[in-house]
Amino acid sequence: MQTRAAVAWEANKPLTIETINLDGPRAGEVLVEIMATGVCHTDAYTLSGLDSEGKFPAILGHEGAGIVREVGAGVRSVRPGDHVIPLYTPECRQCKTCLSQRSNLCTAIRSTQGQGLMPDSTSRFSCSNETVFHYMGTSTFSNFTVLPEIAVAKVREDAPFDKICYIGCGVTTGVGAVIHTAKVWPGANVVVFGLGGIGLNVIQAARMVGADKIIGVDLNPSKVAMAKKFGMTHFVNPDEVGRDKVVQAIVDLTGGGADFSFECIGNVHTMRQALECCHRGWGESIVIGVAPSGAEISTRPFQLVTGRVWKGSAFGGARGRTDVPKIVDWYMEGKINIDDLITHTMPLEEINTAFDLMHEGKSIRSVVVF
Amino acid sequence: MQTRAAVAWEANKPLTIETINLDGPRAGEVLVEIMATGVCHTDAYTLSGLDSEGKFPAILGHEGAGIVREVGAGVRSVRPGDHVIPLYTPECRQCKTCLSQRSNLCTAIRSTQGQGLMPDSTSRFSCSNETVFHYMGTSTFSNFTVLPEIAVAKVREDAPFDKICYIGCGVTTGVGAVIHTAKVWPGANVVVFGLGGIGLNVIQAARMVGADKIIGVDLNPSKVAMAKKFGMTHFVNPDEVGRDKVVQAIVDLTGGGADFSFECIGNVHTMRQALECCHRGWGESIVIGVAPSGAEISTRPFQLVTGRVWKGSAFGGARGRTDVPKIVDWYMEGKINIDDLITHTMPLEEINTAFDLMHEGKSIRSVVVF
Repeated sequence: MQTRAAVAWEANKPLTIETINLDGPRAGEVLVEIMATGVCHTDAYTLSGLDSEGKFPAILGHEGAGIVREVGAGVRSVRPGDHVIPLYTPECRQCKTCLSQRSNLCTAIRSTQGQGLMPDSTSRFSCSNETVFHYMGTSTFSNFTVLPEIAVAKVREDAPFDKICYIGCGVTTGVGAVIHTAKVWPGANVVVFGLGGIGLNVIQAARMVGADKIIGVDLNPSKVAMAKKFGMTHFVNPDEVGRDKVVQAIVDLTGGGADFSFECIGNVHTMRQALECCHRGWGESIVIGVAPSGAEISTRPFQLVTGRVWKGSAFGGARGRTDVPKIVDWYMEGKINIDDLITHTMPLEEINTAFDLMHEGKSIRSVVVF
Repeated sequence: MQTRAAVAWEANKPLTIETINLDGPRAGEVLVEIMATGVCHTDAYTLSGLDSEGKFPAILGHEGAGIVREVGAGVRSVRPGDHVIPLYTPECRQCKTCLSQRSNLCTAIRSTQGQGLMPDSTSRFSCSNETVFHYMGTSTFSNFTVLPEIAVAKVREDAPFDKICYIGCGVTTGVGAVIHTAKVWPGANVVVFGLGGIGLNVIQAARMVGADKIIGVDLNPSKVAMAKKFGMTHFVNPDEVGRDKVVQAIVDLTGGGADFSFECIGNVHTMRQALECCHRGWGESIVIGVAPSGAEISTRPFQLVTGRVWKGSAFGGARGRTDVPKIVDWYMEGKINIDDLITHTMPLEEINTAFDLMHEGKSIRSVVVF
């Protein structure tokens, strides 16, 4: 079949809208009509050429929502008409990691996914006889895309695609880090470094689970109003307290240190601050942000020996097929706010505007609707 | 009263045996006759002058066992005749940390203990009118010493002092890190960096809780025999596999990485290896060793984002009054081996020999008996 898609032909060039060829689903795979997709920093990172795993030409996009239109042989968990969210972190329920019940980082299709290919080591996308690679196993910048069955989460049918697509990455990353990775408890003091989309999702999840103080740290005071709306109770601006006094400011605010901190920036210096502002004895710091290639975190080991814990979170520690439908429910029940985070909506033809808005800091999240 | 003690008059000088003055216990304090004490690397570290908190003159020693001889006003948890192990990490059961139930790092007397003083900010030791400081709140190199009630663990009376004194630090540090900090599960693969006294205690605790592979890492192959006796199943010598290939060797041995690793050396480079040899998704690395002042650990944050956890452990995460008596029981029941770890025993007059044996690598643990 043929489908419309935004193709990244090479690094640092705008995407172009093309009509491309798409082979149908093979055994264990599904064809999904993408109805909406978010545009995420990770797409921009790969498009910038800095992602060592990035291959071109490719169809980017990993934050989508759509409808199953066709299933390959042996597919049992979904059928045509089902509403789904594609999963760049699949959940096979069979691999060593899934069976460990200690991690969401399913390895069933990791090697081919990293190569921009389907599990049978082929691409289903081509354009004028040239192979076009898949991206993160999802390629949601295509109106139709093919995914392994284990890489789609079936969700309720009354949920709007142009909102729940954000659950495919940003919402789950932030909310899940609080719920699955940190397991924040009611009454905990929480610190969030970076008040972008991920940080706001961390904040609203911390509020949802009953955190006490929810302290935001950001250099940009224009982010305060939205952060307060999502549940932030205190704001620390490093330029006001002194960039080398952020840790002490948080220790003072919390009467000893944070129970949990979340780094949502991707800066190794704030990662260190996030660890060191944690409470002696039990404070846990969760790295969510992606640091530049080669950058390293460091601290004195005394920080760990005196009880702080350094962790990370990918896709919020969520097992996609199991946990993503619950987050959709929470959105539909009004427990979490997505609407205010989606600041821009546009058709596929304007997808490059979404990247521009992101780089200019004008959007929290742009969503492309097909 | 007067008592015999080994006094550290200044850094880097041998201890001298003195008859010193000791004031009796005040309210909430107990007088303990020390029957035996281990000599630990931490004593040597302070004696070397590198410990920024170290004060002289002082009576070192923090790994003792003895008998309560007198109690001050209001003491209810022990009485004269009780056998006890002094605790450099007390357990007040009242402070924020104790009540958190998330950490053993009781803060009730932390500030005065760090100054070499009793909780009322005085020293009870003097020699020829010169004040002699306490050390780690214990000063077990004195035949009699005074301790706060919250800093003694009451233990069974049939346990030999010259063995259970080691539970006052080294045994609990290693065994507790496995049981309390890491919570190693049956079937886990465990890696231990450093096959000294702490490492051997980690190994025997890992065996006790049913670990599968227990891999020791050390540059010194002469340590293999004892480590195997304590439960080590595999040995990695970095000089044999290549010092930059230790992580890969462990990943290969474990089919993906360690479930738990323990750093028992105090070297920031092996701390990094210990983290990075952990299994993607869930492996946890526990820092036990004390690094040189100012040294820092580092790694790429990707290690954390992909599921590894970096922690530390002090006094094995043990709440002294609650957990130390259980470890004494385990020793008496034959679940853990202490006898083979105590390689030398000597009278107080020969205490400097214990330091010499340690520096020469000839002892695992020397014990002074009074």
